[in-house]
Amino acid sequence: MEVGGGEARTEVENKQIIFKGFIETTPTETDMELKLGNKIKLKAPKGSGSLLVKNLYLSCDPYMRGRMRENYDSYIPPFTPGSVIQGFSVSRVVDSDNPDFKPGDLIAGLMGWEEYSLIQKTEKLRKIQPDDIPLSYYVGLLGMPGFTAYAGFFEVCTPKKGENVFVSAASGAVGQLVGQLAKLHGCYVVGSAGTNQKVDLLKNKLGFDEALNYKEEPDLDIALKRYFPEGIDIYFDNVGGAMLDAALVNMRIHGRIAVCGMVSQQGRYDPHGVHNLFNLVVKRIRMQGFLQSDYLHLFPRFLEEVISLYKQGKIVYIEDMNEGLESAPAAFVGLFSGKNIGKQVIRVARE
Amino acid sequence: MEVGGGEARTEVENKQIIFKGFIETTPTETDMELKLGNKIKLKAPKGSGSLLVKNLYLSCDPYMRGRMRENYDSYIPPFTPGSVIQGFSVSRVVDSDNPDFKPGDLIAGLMGWEEYSLIQKTEKLRKIQPDDIPLSYYVGLLGMPGFTAYAGFFEVCTPKKGENVFVSAASGAVGQLVGQLAKLHGCYVVGSAGTNQKVDLLKNKLGFDEALNYKEEPDLDIALKRYFPEGIDIYFDNVGGAMLDAALVNMRIHGRIAVCGMVSQQGRYDPHGVHNLFNLVVKRIRMQGFLQSDYLHLFPRFLEEVISLYKQGKIVYIEDMNEGLESAPAAFVGLFSGKNIGKQVIRVARE
Repeated sequence: MEVGGGEARTEVENKQIIFKGFIETTPTETDMELKLGNKIKLKAPKGSGSLLVKNLYLSCDPYMRGRMRENYDSYIPPFTPGSVIQGFSVSRVVDSDNPDFKPGDLIAGLMGWEEYSLIQKTEKLRKIQPDDIPLSYYVGLLGMPGFTAYAGFFEVCTPKKGENVFVSAASGAVGQLVGQLAKLHGCYVVGSAGTNQKVDLLKNKLGFDEALNYKEEPDLDIALKRYFPEGIDIYFDNVGGAMLDAALVNMRIHGRIAVCGMVSQQGRYDPHGVHNLFNLVVKRIRMQGFLQSDYLHLFPRFLEEVISLYKQGKIVYIEDMNEGLESAPAAFVGLFSGKNIGKQVIRVARE
Repeated sequence: MEVGGGEARTEVENKQIIFKGFIETTPTETDMELKLGNKIKLKAPKGSGSLLVKNLYLSCDPYMRGRMRENYDSYIPPFTPGSVIQGFSVSRVVDSDNPDFKPGDLIAGLMGWEEYSLIQKTEKLRKIQPDDIPLSYYVGLLGMPGFTAYAGFFEVCTPKKGENVFVSAASGAVGQLVGQLAKLHGCYVVGSAGTNQKVDLLKNKLGFDEALNYKEEPDLDIALKRYFPEGIDIYFDNVGGAMLDAALVNMRIHGRIAVCGMVSQQGRYDPHGVHNLFNLVVKRIRMQGFLQSDYLHLFPRFLEEVISLYKQGKIVYIEDMNEGLESAPAAFVGLFSGKNIGKQVIRVARE
C-alpha cells in the first residue's frame, strides 16, 4: 500500500534545531544548534499508532525558556540536552498509522523544531479544519497565545463594560488579543510596548485607545497616571518587575491583576523585586497567576468566538514571520529583547 | 432630669493622647504626647444626639500607623495633628442624648485615646450584650482583628479540610485566631513568630501543629520546606517581604495567599522587595488583599460562631494588657518590633 505519495518511499534529510544544554540566564543563539545530515523515513511505522508529519509553522514562545532550565519547578518538563527542541507547530500529516488521522490532514500541537516529526502521542493534537484563515494563526491567534489572552481576560480578569484595562507587552502574541477583546467588551484600553513602531501599531492597527513606549518614560508611575487619571481596574501583566510596581500604585479598589505565564520567564531573572504589594491590601486587589492549560474546557468556545470575530473583521493579528528553520534560534532569542513585532512564527515550509 | 449619676454633674479631668504630627517612618513614642489638664463635662448636650462615654479598653492596631501618614492613599483618613488619636475601644455610656443608647450601655467602636469621649456619630457603634466574656475581647477576638482573621481565612483563603496552612505573625491579634480556625477546619497549621516564647505559645497554648522562630532561621525557604515538605496550600500573610518570598517558593499548585491589612503597614517601609512572584504563574496562585470592612455582612455570623467556640473552650485568645492611658504610646510603638505577646490592649479604667 502506498501512503502519502512519493515522499513516503524515500529517506529525506531532516534538519533539526538541537538544545545544547541547560542554562540559567537569558537564552542566546549558541544555546541551540542547527543539525544537518539527519535522515528520516517519511513513514509512520506499522503498529505504532504514530504520525509522520511535515512541519509548516513553528511557534517561538517565552515559556520555552523555562524548559531550558534544569531545575524547572513547573508544569512542563525541561528539554533534553542534545535532543531536538519542542514547540507548538502547525503541521501536515504525511503518513499515518492512526485511524484518526490521514495524510493531508492539518494538525496543531507540540512537535520538534525540525522539518519532519514522528509523533507517537497523538492525544493532544488538534485537527485544523481548512478555512480561509492563515494556517500560522493556529500557533498564535487561535493557538496557545490567543487562548491565554482569552482565558486570562475573561476568566481571570472578570471584566465589566467600561472598566479601565492596562496591558503590558501589548503588541506581543498574547497582549494584542487581550487589548482587542477588552475593546470589544467595552473597556478603555491602554497598552505598553518597547518601541515607537509598536506603539503606533497598538493605536493605529490594533485599536487600543492609547499606548506608551515604556522605554521613553522616565517614571512609569507618572506615565500610568497620565493615561489612567482615575486608575486601573484590570492589569493584564505580561512583564512583572518595575511595570507591575507602577501598576500596583495606580490600581483602583477591587482591581484585578492577571499574571500571565510570560512573567514566569521574565520575573525569574528580574533583580528589581516588587515593592508596592501593600497596594493589594489598601485596594483589595486580586492578583492571580494562571496558565491557559487550566481552562481547556473553554477552548472550543474560544475557537468559535475568535474565528467569528476574525471573519467579521473585528479582530486582526500581527505576526512576525521568519523564513526557514535556520532562523528559529535567533527569532526565539529575540523574544527576550522585544525584537519581534507581534507573534513570532517560523515558516519551515510552504503549505 | 438626672442622667448618669454623680459623674454627670461635674467637670472632670480628661487625659488624652495627642497625635503630634505626620511621620514617614516607624512610629516612636515621641510622635504622641500625653495631654493633662483637659476638662470635660460628663454630659451629652441636649439636641446633639451624641453620647458621652467612659473608655475602658483601647486597642493598639498596626493599621493606625497608616493614619499617621499625611498622604495615606487608603480606606480611612489620616489623623489630625494636634488632635487626640482615634482607635477601637470598649466604652461605657455615661450620658446619652440618643434614644438608642442609655447610661450603662457597653459599646465598641472608634473612640479617642482619652478617658472620656463625646461621640457624635453613633451609626457604627456596636452594643455589647453583657456576657461572661472578657470585655476587652470586643477589640480583639470579637472585634476588628478577630473578624479580619475570620473573613480572611474563610472568605479569602477558601480553605478545605486537610490543607496545609501557614500563618505569619501567628501569635498576633489576627494570626492566633487564623491558626485556631484553621485547626478547627481540619487543616495542618504552622505559624511563625519572632521569639521562642511566642513559638511556645503557638504550639502549647494555641494548638498550632508546629511553629518556628523566623529570627533563628538562616534560610526561610529551607525552614518552610522543613515544615511543609509537600508545600503550602494557604498562606495567611501578616508580614510581606522576605517571608512572602519564602512562602511563594513553597506554595502548592492552586494555592491561595491572603494578604492581610497588617502588610499594608509593614510592606510600605520594607526595602526588601518581593522577587518570587513568578511562582504565582507556575503554581497558578491567587493572591488577594483584603480588608475586613468589605465583609461586614458576615459580622453577625462571625460573632455568633466565635462566641460559641469560645464558650465551648475550643478557642483561646492571648492578650497583652497594659495598664493606664499613659502606657498607650509605648504599647503602640511596641507593635512594630513585636514586643507585644498576643493582642495589645490598654486598660484605661476598670469596668
